[in-house]
Amino acid sequence: MKFCAHCGDKLIVTVPPGDDRPRHVCSACGEIFYSNPKIIVGCLPRWKDKVLLCRRSIEPRKDFWTLPAGYMEAGETLEDGAVRETQEEANAEVSIIRLQSIVSLPFIDQVYFLFLADLKHTNFGPGEESSEVRLFSEAEIPRSELAFRAIEFSLDRFFTTRHSDSEVVHSTSFTQSPSGVWNRSSRAQDE
Amino acid sequence: MKFCAHCGDKLIVTVPPGDDRPRHVCSACGEIFYSNPKIIVGCLPRWKDKVLLCRRSIEPRKDFWTLPAGYMEAGETLEDGAVRETQEEANAEVSIIRLQSIVSLPFIDQVYFLFLADLKHTNFGPGEESSEVRLFSEAEIPRSELAFRAIEFSLDRFFTTRHSDSEVVHSTSFTQSPSGVWNRSSRAQDE
Repeated sequence: MKFCAHCGDKLIVTVPPGDDRPRHVCSACGEIFYSNPKIIVGCLPRWKDKVLLCRRSIEPRKDFWTLPAGYMEAGETLEDGAVRETQEEANAEVSIIRLQSIVSLPFIDQVYFLFLADLKHTNFGPGEESSEVRLFSEAEIPRSELAFRAIEFSLDRFFTTRHSDSEVVHSTSFTQSPSGVWNRSSRAQDE
Repeated sequence: MKFCAHCGDKLIVTVPPGDDRPRHVCSACGEIFYSNPKIIVGCLPRWKDKVLLCRRSIEPRKDFWTLPAGYMEAGETLEDGAVRETQEEANAEVSIIRLQSIVSLPFIDQVYFLFLADLKHTNFGPGEESSEVRLFSEAEIPRSELAFRAIEFSLDRFFTTRHSDSEVVHSTSFTQSPSGVWNRSSRAQDE
């Protein structure tokens, strides 16, 4: 960030009065620009004893498998976003059951919110960001080809708790990039 | 938003290739600027049968009572942010128990995440954004003087379920501004 989105003048980095950390502040009009974590919403869609995964057709982690998920948009609730992403990435219609997992990724300023959902039917298929969409039983999950740790976490907790009555929302944080697995230069994408 | 934060040239509003909704796009360098919902994190701090509330010393809703909460910062987990806000607004130290409520506010692009927490001691007091910090029993809660609906929701669910063993995360959405109660011209603040 170099220029003010309101007046176009140069930004400086300084601690504003009453604040406790550096922000981007306009040297002309004084507007303060905050950088806040982004919300990623998605679904863990189930059908009988299987779950739906999408093979990514885009970077990062092209060709790896993921749950349908993406950035929450303006004007949405968490649930709205999760249903929309499932429609966009898997052309799948779901009914949300409940929030299933939360994963904070402070090193890239993202928080995942993944919802357990029932597929309404099996008439699904790849959207623009997927090359393949499939149902997997627990034994079939391509564990070494999962795209993101948040997805691994959600699937792991789903399969280990699905026969209990618990409605616990599973929660964790990953505080560092997974070394050597993949590198990212931009924070504007999924981990 | 009028100017590109990267090159300073003018922004236009257009649907980028492969996207499905209008974004702010730089007419010179092509950078796309996304507007995403913001995360508000806070605590419902308890001490024996009482809960801690802060009286706001700033707008919006100055002089109304709230749970300690505010915008999640870069580099934080949800829990980090909730603990920090409780420290900043109430000078209170807490141990987080679990996520207690989630409230989506799509009309102002905010989502609240409020954590049930235990006060470590009663050595607390107003921070910069509070004029008063107090413990309240259920009967003492100033119901007509609560600042925000997300706070009302969290407190209501806390008192109605606290004697059960349930670890359900209470979740709701408010899709419109509360008519006539208060008005906001800026989306850059709490509801």
